[in-house]
Amino acid sequence: MRGAVETLKVSSKSNPNAVAGAMAGVVRQSGAVGVQVVGAGALNQAIKAVAIARGYVAPSGIDLVCVPTFADIEIDGQGRTAIHLLVEGRDGTKREPIDVREGAAADPALRHVLTS
Amino acid sequence: MRGAVETLKVSSKSNPNAVAGAMAGVVRQSGAVGVQVVGAGALNQAIKAVAIARGYVAPSGIDLVCVPTFADIEIDGQGRTAIHLLVEGRDGTKREPIDVREGAAADPALRHVLTS
Repeated sequence: MRGAVETLKVSSKSNPNAVAGAMAGVVRQSGAVGVQVVGAGALNQAIKAVAIARGYVAPSGIDLVCVPTFADIEIDGQGRTAIHLLVEGRDGTKREPIDVREGAAADPALRHVLTS
Repeated sequence: MRGAVETLKVSSKSNPNAVAGAMAGVVRQSGAVGVQVVGAGALNQAIKAVAIARGYVAPSGIDLVCVPTFADIEIDGQGRTAIHLLVEGRDGTKREPIDVREGAAADPALRHVLTS
């Protein structure tokens, strides 16, 4: 999967500070990180995390922005509409093709990697 | 208020399509629009609206991104933490200084301008 953007699954129970730390780490390493959420509570934690992560990466000269898109995923055999956030520096210099890894949603072990 | 960015108040009852239309209009006119939300439900509608508005302005060559920040506001005399989203083209060529108009939140008439 050339150019795949690493995708974090965030839930309503995710700690925004922890998610922000993970976001900042991936962005520093690869220039961008994907975030996938289902539901308003999960999106709330993810957006708070982006606001926090902006402060983490700003000293490195990265102006973090996010690009929301809809994503059709399957959970427990049911179709759901998720929100996908591409989180990256404004200039997108290291921008890579998006690969949301649809299959990952079907793997319970990957569904919520940041729940504490 | 030189360079003030127009700010939309979005609630959990706002229609994302209607908000997206308003966003696209303001962005086309002035290059950027601010969105203020309180609560997960309102944020959910606002982010859906950004995803929809991306499609509205893409044919004009605008790659719409959003920049979330925290904002301390006062509602009915109580301090609340709102989320402010700066929604603008990625290149930010028309980017202006942010003016969130703190006073606007205290005016009930302005609190939810997009509730249908």
